[in-house]
Amino acid sequence: MEAIRWEHDALLLLDQTRLPASEHWLRYIDYREVSQAIKTMVVRGAPAIGIAAAYAMVLAARESIHNNADFPAAMSQAKAALAASRPTAVNLFWALDRMECCWKACGPDLSRLENEACTIHLEDIRMNRAIGEAGAALIPKGARVLTHCNAGALATGGYGTALGVIREAHTQRKVSMVYADETRPLLQGARLTAYELLQDNIPVTLICDNMAGCLMAQGEIDLIVVGCDRMAANGDFANKIGTYSLAVLARHHGIPFYTALPSSTIDLAIPDGSHIPVEQRDGNEIACFAGRQTGPAGVRTWNPSFDVTPHELLTAAITEQGVLYPPFDKALHDHLL
Amino acid sequence: MEAIRWEHDALLLLDQTRLPASEHWLRYIDYREVSQAIKTMVVRGAPAIGIAAAYAMVLAARESIHNNADFPAAMSQAKAALAASRPTAVNLFWALDRMECCWKACGPDLSRLENEACTIHLEDIRMNRAIGEAGAALIPKGARVLTHCNAGALATGGYGTALGVIREAHTQRKVSMVYADETRPLLQGARLTAYELLQDNIPVTLICDNMAGCLMAQGEIDLIVVGCDRMAANGDFANKIGTYSLAVLARHHGIPFYTALPSSTIDLAIPDGSHIPVEQRDGNEIACFAGRQTGPAGVRTWNPSFDVTPHELLTAAITEQGVLYPPFDKALHDHLL
Repeated sequence: MEAIRWEHDALLLLDQTRLPASEHWLRYIDYREVSQAIKTMVVRGAPAIGIAAAYAMVLAARESIHNNADFPAAMSQAKAALAASRPTAVNLFWALDRMECCWKACGPDLSRLENEACTIHLEDIRMNRAIGEAGAALIPKGARVLTHCNAGALATGGYGTALGVIREAHTQRKVSMVYADETRPLLQGARLTAYELLQDNIPVTLICDNMAGCLMAQGEIDLIVVGCDRMAANGDFANKIGTYSLAVLARHHGIPFYTALPSSTIDLAIPDGSHIPVEQRDGNEIACFAGRQTGPAGVRTWNPSFDVTPHELLTAAITEQGVLYPPFDKALHDHLL
Repeated sequence: MEAIRWEHDALLLLDQTRLPASEHWLRYIDYREVSQAIKTMVVRGAPAIGIAAAYAMVLAARESIHNNADFPAAMSQAKAALAASRPTAVNLFWALDRMECCWKACGPDLSRLENEACTIHLEDIRMNRAIGEAGAALIPKGARVLTHCNAGALATGGYGTALGVIREAHTQRKVSMVYADETRPLLQGARLTAYELLQDNIPVTLICDNMAGCLMAQGEIDLIVVGCDRMAANGDFANKIGTYSLAVLARHHGIPFYTALPSSTIDLAIPDGSHIPVEQRDGNEIACFAGRQTGPAGVRTWNPSFDVTPHELLTAAITEQGVLYPPFDKALHDHLL
């Protein structure tokens, strides 16, 4: 399963807002439209939006060369537009910085830029495979695993981070059940995670977010693994809203709580989670669904897309270079050296 | 605001499955259809289904008298049918038992039965007012209150239990904001609680269930008050799924956690929460919404309608006779003497 394809002159994105009802691919030749696609979550997931942005910079370079524009100015403008699409996941900025290094070093060399974007994409898939292998070692036989939102193939270049761990553990015949939180308001758990797992014949049970605690109390969850949108230098991390509640519930029930992430998600520039900007999204995501009003017209809402889980609630962080344990400040610093 | 009306020869129910989009009243003259209305949640909320069932017994008595049927047999049959509608809320069985005492004492006396059902209804409203007064004393000035599901006028004879507390505290100008969990899967918080509070001009903010923990971490919640579907002799209590998670989160953040309930919700016949039967509902409540598939076709689901919160996580229980504190086993026993 994949959600991002590159066709040399165009970026193809699987429209994730329409899954699972229809598998509809959209074709992009203008970086501005890719920025819009990131905003509206046609493509979502920290690694995936980094990859999409990298390809969008190739589209920007092609446009600039075609128009005989001021190349550095055009590229800076495109970078700024893409960086403004979503604020929380650091992979977006990491990928844009990498593309900037490339064009600053090579100038308007389309094949070099295209190669760099493809490398970012392929590296991500390779990292996810390594995350899967590192994480699977943590999964006991017969495990019942809870996950939140979608940190799968659809959220990455392919294979997935948290779902990469689950996929590899499933290959090793260790997984007896995956519980997928539906993940309100945009239902990525229901629409994307359950869909991905069903396609791969991995046993999955869909629940509402507010049922996870009850499952834990009944002894039905052995571990929790989620993705990550940005990890600060002390191990605090942002992930889809609801992650923090799961971490508190896991602690209460003595259940291991893991996040799976490529190194590109680690941001040593910020000391702790209080510095991670959290995106607030339109309240209609909560008050409406499928064109139908779920809340009364005019109701006030509060709709943060992410929350921050303090490192104290994290059992371990699963990266492509291995599993990091507390103290996370030291582990992360050593990891990125 | 009210959801149940009695018109001597018919029971009128506000169709709560269609709120807030439309205010549509349904008219019942057959107790079997009332049983179906309870199952499908046209009427819901522990006190409200008790009241609806009491009126349904009047409809059953009228039918039996009209048909010259064996009165005790017909009434027992009607009672069994209504008792089978939903298993968790004890108020249903409490109200049916009260009606049974009445017909066993008076025989086929329609006006006595009608009077008993109306008394149950009016007593409930009076108890909710008393719960509101007792609970409001616990609310600090400027309080930001979180509630879950709907324990309001729509869930009761009128005024509400948890929302009765909030209404009275609002009248006393103590409430600065009510946060309403939308309460998946059936969205009673969004559709009913936010609607009730907006109608009464009580400030309300609608959130998804998975956002409550993040709000608590940000210091935005001063207390939590929820309803109750059945409380066991030790203070363990069943309420809408998600209540337990809120109780754990409240404990983690040092936030007071209250349930508001009339005495008819207390079931001293069961020693603890493990004996409360929890209804499992159709998985399509999770996997579909408004005719649209939210989860992939054929996905397995787990859909308990309630969870059980252990008494250790409860700060106090607010009843019409006052506030009960731990140890709850003693407090409940003394309370019902």
